[in-house]
Amino acid sequence: MADLSLHSILEQMTLEEKIAQFMQLATPFFEGAEEQGEITGPMAEMGITEEIVKNSGSVLGASGAKEVRSIQEAYLKNNRLGIPLLIMADIVHGFKTIFPVPLGIGCSWDTELAEKSAEIAAREAAVSGVHVTFAPMVDLVRDPRWGRVMESTGEDPFLNSEFARAFVRGFQGRNLAEDTDRVAACVKHFAAYGAAEGGRDYNTVDMSERQLREMYLPAYKAALDEGCEMVMTAFNTVDGIPASGNKKLMRDILREEWGFEGILISDWGAVKELIPHGVANGEKEAAEKAMKAGVDIEMMTTCYVHHLKEQVESGTVSENLIDEAVLRILTLKNKLGLFDHPHRGTDEKREQEVIMSEEHRHVARRLAAKSCVLLKNDDILPLQADKKVALIGPFAQNGDILGPWAWKGSREKAVQLYDGIAKREGAGSISVAKGCDVAAGTEDELNEALAVAAEAEVIILALGESSEMSGEAGSRSDIRLPEIQRKLLAAISKLGKPTVAVLFNGRPLDLTDVSQQTDAILEAWFPGTEGGHAIADLLYGIENPSGRLTMSFPHSAGQVPVYYNCFNTGRPQGAPDAQERYVSQYLDIPNEALYPFGYGLSYSSFTYDEPVLSSGTLKVGETIDVTVRVTNTSEREGEETVQLYVRDLSGEVVRPLKELKDFAKLTFKPRETKEVTFTLREEQLRYHHSDLQFTSDPGDFIVYVGPNSAELKEQPFKLIN
Amino acid sequence: MADLSLHSILEQMTLEEKIAQFMQLATPFFEGAEEQGEITGPMAEMGITEEIVKNSGSVLGASGAKEVRSIQEAYLKNNRLGIPLLIMADIVHGFKTIFPVPLGIGCSWDTELAEKSAEIAAREAAVSGVHVTFAPMVDLVRDPRWGRVMESTGEDPFLNSEFARAFVRGFQGRNLAEDTDRVAACVKHFAAYGAAEGGRDYNTVDMSERQLREMYLPAYKAALDEGCEMVMTAFNTVDGIPASGNKKLMRDILREEWGFEGILISDWGAVKELIPHGVANGEKEAAEKAMKAGVDIEMMTTCYVHHLKEQVESGTVSENLIDEAVLRILTLKNKLGLFDHPHRGTDEKREQEVIMSEEHRHVARRLAAKSCVLLKNDDILPLQADKKVALIGPFAQNGDILGPWAWKGSREKAVQLYDGIAKREGAGSISVAKGCDVAAGTEDELNEALAVAAEAEVIILALGESSEMSGEAGSRSDIRLPEIQRKLLAAISKLGKPTVAVLFNGRPLDLTDVSQQTDAILEAWFPGTEGGHAIADLLYGIENPSGRLTMSFPHSAGQVPVYYNCFNTGRPQGAPDAQERYVSQYLDIPNEALYPFGYGLSYSSFTYDEPVLSSGTLKVGETIDVTVRVTNTSEREGEETVQLYVRDLSGEVVRPLKELKDFAKLTFKPRETKEVTFTLREEQLRYHHSDLQFTSDPGDFIVYVGPNSAELKEQPFKLIN
Repeated sequence: MADLSLHSILEQMTLEEKIAQFMQLATPFFEGAEEQGEITGPMAEMGITEEIVKNSGSVLGASGAKEVRSIQEAYLKNNRLGIPLLIMADIVHGFKTIFPVPLGIGCSWDTELAEKSAEIAAREAAVSGVHVTFAPMVDLVRDPRWGRVMESTGEDPFLNSEFARAFVRGFQGRNLAEDTDRVAACVKHFAAYGAAEGGRDYNTVDMSERQLREMYLPAYKAALDEGCEMVMTAFNTVDGIPASGNKKLMRDILREEWGFEGILISDWGAVKELIPHGVANGEKEAAEKAMKAGVDIEMMTTCYVHHLKEQVESGTVSENLIDEAVLRILTLKNKLGLFDHPHRGTDEKREQEVIMSEEHRHVARRLAAKSCVLLKNDDILPLQADKKVALIGPFAQNGDILGPWAWKGSREKAVQLYDGIAKREGAGSISVAKGCDVAAGTEDELNEALAVAAEAEVIILALGESSEMSGEAGSRSDIRLPEIQRKLLAAISKLGKPTVAVLFNGRPLDLTDVSQQTDAILEAWFPGTEGGHAIADLLYGIENPSGRLTMSFPHSAGQVPVYYNCFNTGRPQGAPDAQERYVSQYLDIPNEALYPFGYGLSYSSFTYDEPVLSSGTLKVGETIDVTVRVTNTSEREGEETVQLYVRDLSGEVVRPLKELKDFAKLTFKPRETKEVTFTLREEQLRYHHSDLQFTSDPGDFIVYVGPNSAELKEQPFKLIN
Repeated sequence: MADLSLHSILEQMTLEEKIAQFMQLATPFFEGAEEQGEITGPMAEMGITEEIVKNSGSVLGASGAKEVRSIQEAYLKNNRLGIPLLIMADIVHGFKTIFPVPLGIGCSWDTELAEKSAEIAAREAAVSGVHVTFAPMVDLVRDPRWGRVMESTGEDPFLNSEFARAFVRGFQGRNLAEDTDRVAACVKHFAAYGAAEGGRDYNTVDMSERQLREMYLPAYKAALDEGCEMVMTAFNTVDGIPASGNKKLMRDILREEWGFEGILISDWGAVKELIPHGVANGEKEAAEKAMKAGVDIEMMTTCYVHHLKEQVESGTVSENLIDEAVLRILTLKNKLGLFDHPHRGTDEKREQEVIMSEEHRHVARRLAAKSCVLLKNDDILPLQADKKVALIGPFAQNGDILGPWAWKGSREKAVQLYDGIAKREGAGSISVAKGCDVAAGTEDELNEALAVAAEAEVIILALGESSEMSGEAGSRSDIRLPEIQRKLLAAISKLGKPTVAVLFNGRPLDLTDVSQQTDAILEAWFPGTEGGHAIADLLYGIENPSGRLTMSFPHSAGQVPVYYNCFNTGRPQGAPDAQERYVSQYLDIPNEALYPFGYGLSYSSFTYDEPVLSSGTLKVGETIDVTVRVTNTSEREGEETVQLYVRDLSGEVVRPLKELKDFAKLTFKPRETKEVTFTLREEQLRYHHSDLQFTSDPGDFIVYVGPNSAELKEQPFKLIN
C-alpha cells in the first residue's frame, strides 16, 4: 500500500479512532483470544470499554497462529476502517527454541550466530502470528545486582552496538513486507535503564550527559542505524525526568538529532507511572507530558485513551502531534504488509514444521556451547570419558535453565545437564544427587550428595540461581550463590576430589568462594533449550570453550561497580610514584575484577607476538593497520577471540583506561599461527568533549592487543592533524 | 595594612616571587623546622631549590609555637619584600583536644556545640602558630565504603550546610586580624568528592549537573556565605574533568556565579595529578590547565613553580591571572594581620595554658556524649550501678578512639572506655578482657574473654574499626566488623547474657549481625579525647543519649547507596496498585536502611501529636507555621530532635521523597509537653529545574514532622502563586 493511502486513511479517522491506535492492551481483552477476559474487575477499573478495544491499535502478548488469526479476524470485522491490529510480544532470546540469555549470547562474541538466533526467534514468532518483538534490549550494564543484566550483552558500548545491529538484522531481515518470517524489532530501554542506582530495578538513574552519550546511547543508536523500527522507553528517570516523559531524550535526541521516524512505545504502564515518579499530578497530566515528550503507544495504561481527546479539543495538545504518531503506527503496519495481508506469516501448518525444528535446536546448541565461559581450569577439563562422575547440585536435573524472558519456552523440553551427559557418555558413567534445592535443602539431601560424591573420581557441581533470581525485578543485594549451595560447595570441597562447578545464573556472581573451592568453573549462564547437550559437549571436550566475558565478575557486591573501561584516577595503583596507602584502592580487595571483561579459557592455548603498526602516526581521516601474530601452542583446534583496545593518553576530558575498538574470533588448527590485521580509523578515536562535540584530539595513544582486557600487548602511536 | 599597600607590594614583586607565592611545601623544607629536611632525595627530585623555598608563600603542616616562630623568623630574614609565610594545617576535629569525628559531630544535630568545637580547635591551633585550617570538609556522602565519610556530616545538603556554617563561624570568628585565637577556614573538597564511584577513594565522580547543584554544592556555598576564606579542590573528576583543572567548577560556578574572592588551593599533589588523570600530558600542561581553571596555590607539587614563568612569558598564561591569584594570597595574609604581626597568635606561654585545658576537655566530653547514637536498647540501658560488668573487646582498653585526621591528638591522653567506666563506677565493678585485636586474635584471647564474660551479669562489647580502616584512602568493600570481631560477638552472644555493643568506627557499618546478637547498640564513632568518659556517662545514665544519625546505615554493602532523600521511582513498594514482584526492590533485603537518617533512641520516650498548619496554602513570598506538640512520656529528662521534612508531590523534575527543611533540638523535663513551631518559607520549596533555574512550583506538598526520617506525621498543603 502506498504512503499516500495511509494519509487518506488518516484523514478518514475520527479523533477517537486516532487515539485508540495509541492504546496497547494485553491479549485477554480481545475477542478471539483463547483466554478472553470479560471486561470486568481490573479491566473495568481501567475504564476499558468494548469501543476502546475494538479500535485499539495493537495487542501485547498474543501468539499462536490459531489464536492470532482468530483475534485479527474478529478485530477486522469490527474495525470501521479496516486497519489491522499490530501483534507485539516479548521474544527476547528465542520464541519456543530458547537460546542462551543475551548476556550469554554476548559472551559468544559471535555476532553472526547471534543474528541467526534472532532470525530463528523471528521465524518461530512470525508463523505464530507475532509482528513485533520487544527486543533487542541493549542497555549497558555495570551492576550485577540488577536482575536484567541477563538481558543485556554487557558493559561495553562497542560490543553492545555490534550485538544490537546483529539482533536487529536477525529479527527484521531486509524487507518486512516480503519476508513474513521476520518481525519488526523494538530496541529498548531508552535510555540508560541499565544504570539503575544500587542495581535495584526501576530505580533512579543519574549521570552526566557526556557519560550518557559516550557509554549508554551508542547501542540504541546502532540498532536504529540498522533500521530498527521501534523504540521502547525506560522505566527510570534520566537527569530527574522519567524516560517516558523525557522530551530531551525522545524529541531532541532520538527524533531531531538521530532522525528516528519509527514508533516510540512506553514500557508496561510507564506512562501512568509518571504519577508515582512525581512529575504528573494525575492521568491527564501524564498523558500530556508523555505525548508531548514523544511516546506514541501507551502500553497497558489508559492515560491517552481517556484524556488526549479533551486535550486536543482544548488545544493543550496539538492534533499535529496526534496525526504524526498515528501515521507512524499506520506506516509500520503497512511496512509489515498488514493492510494487504492482515494475517501476514501466521500459518498453523508451518508453525508445526518450523517451531523447535532440528535446525533451530542445532543452532541453539551451537550458541549455547559458544556462550559458556570457562573461568578456571586446573588441568581437570575436558573430562576423560572413563572417569566415574558424580553430578551434584540443584541444577543436575533441572529444566529451569531457559532463564528469564523465555515466555513461550518449555522447561519440560529443555535438555537438562544430567540428560546431556547421560546421552553422550551413557547413564552408567554418572551418578547423580541434588544435594539441595536452589535456595533450601535438608541434611539428608546433603548427606546423600556427599555419599554419591564419595564414590566418584570427579565431581561436577551444578549450581546457580533460579531464573526468578534475575530478570525483571530480580535484583539481589547479595550476589553470591544462595547460602545453602555455598554450604553444599564447602562440604563437597572438603572431600578433596577433583571438582568442576557448572554455573547456571543470570548475572555475574561473586565467585570468590567457588574459585577457591573448585578446580574448574564453567559459567553456563541460562543456556536455553539445548543447554544440557552443549555443556556435556564442553565438559567432555567435544566442543572447545570459546566464550569470553562481556561483563566483569566482581570480587564481591562491595566492589560494584567494577568495569574495564573505567578511568585511571589521579592516584592509580602501581604508578611509579604511588604511595603505599594514598592510592585509589580498597583496603580489603584488589581494584581489578575477579574475572575481567573479555576473559575466558580454552582447551587450546594461545600466544601473542608483539603487535606491529603500519605506521606510528595516524592522520585525521586516514587509517593504520595493527597486525598481530597469534599462535595456537596446543595440539587442540580451538577458537580465539583476538581483542583490540585503545587508550587515549591525554584528552580534553578524561578518557577510559581502555576501550574495545575491534575483535576477531578465529579458529586455529593445532599449532597454527595466524596473522590478524585490524584497521584502525581516526573516527574510532573520537569522543564526546566537554561541550559534547564528538571529535578526536591529536596526541598520544596506545593500542593494545590480547586475549582479554587484562592481558594485553601494546604499541604507542600518535594521532596528528 | 590597607589594600592599596598590597597592590604596591604586588608591583614590587618579580614574576618569580609572584609564582613562588603559589607554592605550598611541607614543613621539613623550611629553615627553622624541628625536623628539617635537607634538599636532597625526594626534595631534590622535585626540583625544589633554596630560592624556591625562600619565597614559597605558604607551608603545610607546621605547628607548635616555638617551631612556627622560628620558621617565620628565618623566612622573613630571607624574604626580600618581607611577605610573611602563611601557616596551614589540617585541623579537622580538634587540634590536641580531639572532638568526635565530624560524622559524629553531625549526629549531635547541635550546631552551637559544633561551632564551639571549631572555636576550641582554632584557639589551640592559633596559639601553636597555625593560620589556616583545611576544614571544614562538607562533602555530601552516600557510600559508607568510602573512608572519608567520617570527615563529613552526612547525606543531607541542608544539615551539611548548617554544620558548614557552624564550623566556619567557629574557626574564623568575626575578625581574623583582631581575634588571633581564630584561624581562616578552607572548605573542601570542591566538588563532590564524596561521590567517589564504588566508595573507592579518589575514584571517578559522575552525576548530572542538576544533582550536583541540588545535593552536592549547597554545603560548599553555605560555608562561603558564612565568609569562609579559602576553598580546596577535590581529587576526583566531575563530568570527566578533574576538579583541580575544572574551569566550570572554579571559574564559572565558584568565582562568577557565587562571587568567591578568596584563595583556591589544590589538594595534596592534585595539580600534578592532572597527568595521571589523563587531561595533561606533562607538568607544563598541568600548570596551565590548573591556573586557567582557577587554582591559586599548588600543594606539594611543582608544576607552577617550574612552568608558569615560561607560560606567562610566552603569553600562554596571562599575567593578570597570576596577579589576581597573588593578590588573593596577599589579601588573606593581610586579613590575618600577618604583615603587621607576622607571629600573630603564636604564643608559647598561652600554648601551655590553652591546649587541652579543662574547659576544652569539658566541651569535648559534652560533644562526645551528644555524638553517640543509641541504635538499639531492649530494656538494658542505662546500666544499673550494682550490676557486675564484663567489658570485652579490642576497644575495651584502646586509645585508638580519636579517629582519622587527629594529627596532633595523643592516643595516650585519650580516655579509654575501661578508664571511663572505672573512674565512674570503680574498677571493682568491672572485669575486662580484650577477646581479640581489631583484625586478628587467638583462641586463648577468645577463651579468656568468654571466661570473663561468664562471670558477669552484663556484657559490654567494645568493638569497631581501627582508625586506619576509615579516613583518607581507607575504603573498605566489606563494611561489616572485621571477621575476628564477628566471631567474638557470636561466641559472646551464645552465652545468652544481656549484652551491649559499643561501637568505635568511622563509617556506617553493616550491623545486621550485631543487631541480631546484642540487646543494645551504642554507636560511639571515634569519640575523641574524652570518649571513655562520655560513653561511661551514657551507659550508666548520667547522660541521656540524644544523637541522631546523619547517614543511613545499610543492611549490607549490597544495598549501597541507601539514603533517605531518594526518589519514589515509578514502581514504589507499598503503592495501592503495586504488584508483588514488579516493584523497585531487592529480593533479599528491604529498600529501607537498617537504621535510617535522623534515627536514634533516648532513655526518655516521646510522642508527637498531629502537626497543625497555620494555613493549608502557602503563597509565594510568604510563610506558614507548622506546629507540633511533643511530649516526653517518660520520667526521665531528655533531649529530642524534632525534625521537619517536606515533599513536593509533583515537580517539573522528580523531587525527593523527603527533604529535611528544619529541626529543633530541645530539652524536655519529665512528662513535659512542648509546642514546637517551625516557620516554612516558600524559598525552602525551591529546586533546580531541568533548565537549572532555582524556583518553586505551585502545587501539592506534604509537610512531615517526627523523630526521624522514617517515623513521621504529615499534613498536606498547597503552594499557590
